[in-house]
Amino acid sequence: MEEVISFNRGVPATSSLHPDEVSDAAAAVLEEDGKNVLQYGDSRGYPPLRQEVADKYGGDSRAEVLVGNGSLQILDSLAHVYLSPGDAVLVEKPSYDRSIKIFDRVGVNVFGVEMEKDGVNLGKFADMVDRVDPKLFYTVPDFHNPTGITTSGKKRKRVAEMARDAGMTIIEDSPYRRLRYSGEDEPTYRSIAPDCVVQMSSVSKLISPGIRVGWIIAREELIDEVARFSEDTYITPSLLSQGVVSHLMRTGWVEENVKRLVDLYKPRLDATLSSLGELFSQADWVEARGGFFVGLWLPEGTDVEKFYGQAKNEGLTLSSPKGFYPDYDGERFVRLPFPALKPEEIEAGVSRLASIWENV
Amino acid sequence: MEEVISFNRGVPATSSLHPDEVSDAAAAVLEEDGKNVLQYGDSRGYPPLRQEVADKYGGDSRAEVLVGNGSLQILDSLAHVYLSPGDAVLVEKPSYDRSIKIFDRVGVNVFGVEMEKDGVNLGKFADMVDRVDPKLFYTVPDFHNPTGITTSGKKRKRVAEMARDAGMTIIEDSPYRRLRYSGEDEPTYRSIAPDCVVQMSSVSKLISPGIRVGWIIAREELIDEVARFSEDTYITPSLLSQGVVSHLMRTGWVEENVKRLVDLYKPRLDATLSSLGELFSQADWVEARGGFFVGLWLPEGTDVEKFYGQAKNEGLTLSSPKGFYPDYDGERFVRLPFPALKPEEIEAGVSRLASIWENV
Repeated sequence: MEEVISFNRGVPATSSLHPDEVSDAAAAVLEEDGKNVLQYGDSRGYPPLRQEVADKYGGDSRAEVLVGNGSLQILDSLAHVYLSPGDAVLVEKPSYDRSIKIFDRVGVNVFGVEMEKDGVNLGKFADMVDRVDPKLFYTVPDFHNPTGITTSGKKRKRVAEMARDAGMTIIEDSPYRRLRYSGEDEPTYRSIAPDCVVQMSSVSKLISPGIRVGWIIAREELIDEVARFSEDTYITPSLLSQGVVSHLMRTGWVEENVKRLVDLYKPRLDATLSSLGELFSQADWVEARGGFFVGLWLPEGTDVEKFYGQAKNEGLTLSSPKGFYPDYDGERFVRLPFPALKPEEIEAGVSRLASIWENV
Repeated sequence: MEEVISFNRGVPATSSLHPDEVSDAAAAVLEEDGKNVLQYGDSRGYPPLRQEVADKYGGDSRAEVLVGNGSLQILDSLAHVYLSPGDAVLVEKPSYDRSIKIFDRVGVNVFGVEMEKDGVNLGKFADMVDRVDPKLFYTVPDFHNPTGITTSGKKRKRVAEMARDAGMTIIEDSPYRRLRYSGEDEPTYRSIAPDCVVQMSSVSKLISPGIRVGWIIAREELIDEVARFSEDTYITPSLLSQGVVSHLMRTGWVEENVKRLVDLYKPRLDATLSSLGELFSQADWVEARGGFFVGLWLPEGTDVEKFYGQAKNEGLTLSSPKGFYPDYDGERFVRLPFPALKPEEIEAGVSRLASIWENV
C-alpha cells in the first residue's frame, strides 16, 4: 500500500510550532509572576491574559472575557448554563462535529440550516427561526469548519437582525479568522450586535493546540455564570499556559507568527484549490480564502459509503461526513484540511481522491 | 477590625511554590519533546507522564492511567460516563464539597455515611449499601477533606469487601496521601481491591495547583470510556503542563519537594493541634497526622449560624459547613486548613475562633 495521506483532522503543521519561543515566554512569566501562575486563581482565567484578549480581540473590558482550557471546554460550560434539555439550537449544515456533540450531550434539539457559498440560506434560516423558536445559533463565520465558507457581511447583518428580533443568542466561533490568505475581512458578528453575540476563539491555530488556551467574549453576567459553572468543574484553568500566551500576545509575537502562518499555509490552500480545479471539474467545492479547510461535494450519483470505504482501503484518511450533520442523510461531503500537508502531499492526496472517486 | 485570618480554602502555602524549578522543567521538556507537547495529543494525557504515574503511583501500565486538567475535571467526566440520574452514590459525612456538587450536577442521589475517627461507621455503611444499592462510594481515605481523618487499614479492608460483594466501585481520592507528618501509611484501597477501585490524585498539593494536573488510575476499559468523554469535552488536556510535571517526576524533584513540604507543614499542623488543645478542651477535633485539614466540632448547644455570622464579622474567614454535607442538618462542624498560614497566624486564628465561640 502507498503511504497514508491524512486529511482527517484540522491540526496545525508541526513545523509551525515554536518550542524555543514558548520556552522563553514560560521563563519570562514564571520570573515575573510565577507565584500567581502556580497558585489557584480566578476561574475566569489569568487576569493579564483576559486583558490582552479584551484589548486585541474586541472585549470592552476584561470583565467580558473568560479564558479556559480550549474553547470547546468553554462551549460545554456555556451549553450547560444557557441551554436546557428540549431547547432548540441552530447550526450550519454542515457544522463542526465536536460542537454538535456538545449540544447533543445537553439534550437539546439541533437543527441544521443549509449553507450557500456566502453563508446560511436566509430564507431557510428565517423559516427555521419561526418554526423551532431556537435559543441560539452556533456559527463559524470565518473560514468555516468544515467547508471553508466565509459568511458575507450582508448575511451577517441580516442574521444578526433576525436573531435580535427573535431574542436569540449567536455564538460566533472564530478560531481561523486571523488566518486570511487573500481578500478582506468581513465585520465580526460581535461588532454588528454585541448585545446578542458570544464570540469564541483560541490560540490553537495561532500558537499551539497542546497549550490549550481558548476564550469567550460576552456580556459580563453571562461570563460570571459560565465562570461559576467552570469553577465547579475544574476550579481554575491551567494558569501556566495562560501566562505563556499572555506573554506571547503582549510582546507582539503572536502578530508576527500570524504572518509566518499565512506564508506557510497560503501555498497549501493554493495547492488544494488548483488540484481540485484540475481533477474535480465535475464536482463542487469552496474557493476558501483562509483558515484550515476546503469543503468538497462529490458529483451527484456518487455512492458515498462505497467512496469512504474505498478511501480507507487505499490509504487516504478522511473524516466521516456523518459527524458534521445533525441529521446526516447521505450528503456527499468531504472535508479537506490542508495546513498539515505539504503542497506535494496535497496534490498526491487530491489525485488519489479523484482516482478513488472514478472507481466507485 | 483586626487583620483577616483566612481558614477558608485548602490552598498550598505560596512559599512552597517554585517558579524557577518549573521554568527549568518547562525549558527541558520543550527542548526534548516540544513538538509533541505543543501539538494536539491523546485525550488520556501526555504518554511519558502517564508512564511516570503508573510507575510511581501504582498503575500496572500506562493504559490504566488518564491524566487531565486537575482531578475534579476527571471526576466530572467519570460521573458522566459511569452514573445515570437517579443512581445512588455514597460519600463520607462530611465530604469534599466540590465532589458532592459534581455528583449533584449529574442528577444522582448522594447519601452521607457518618465518619468516626478511623473512617466511616461500618454498620451504617452496611445498612446504607443494603438500603440504597449504591453504584459507588466516594472516599478521601488519607487525611480526609474536610476532617483530616485517615481511614484505618482494617476499615479499608471491610469497606472494600462490602463494595465488592455489592458490585460497587470505590473512588479513592488521595491528593494528600504523600503529605504524612507522623505515623505510618495505611494500604491504599487500590492495593486492597484493584478490581473495584478508581484511584484519583493530583500534583496540586505536591507541585502547584495552577499547573492543573491530576489523574485517575483504573481498569483500562473505564480509562478508555472516560477518555472518549474527555475528548468530546476538551479534545486534549494541557500538554505543556503535563510535560513539566513529567520532567519534575522523572528527575526526582517531586520526591525532594515532598520532604520540603513535610518540613514546612508539620509545624503548622502541630500549631493547629496544640492551639485546639489549649483553647478548645470542651470541643472535639481530629488528631490529623498529615494533609491540609483539621476538623473541629463545636461543643453541643453552640448556635452554629450565629457562630459563623460572628466569625465573618470578626475577620475570620471560614468555609460554610453546608457544602460538606449532602443534607446539612445544623452540624457544628468547622474545617481548619492550616498549610497556607504560619504557626503564629494559626495560633491567632484558633484563639479568635475560641473567643467568638465563647461569645455566641
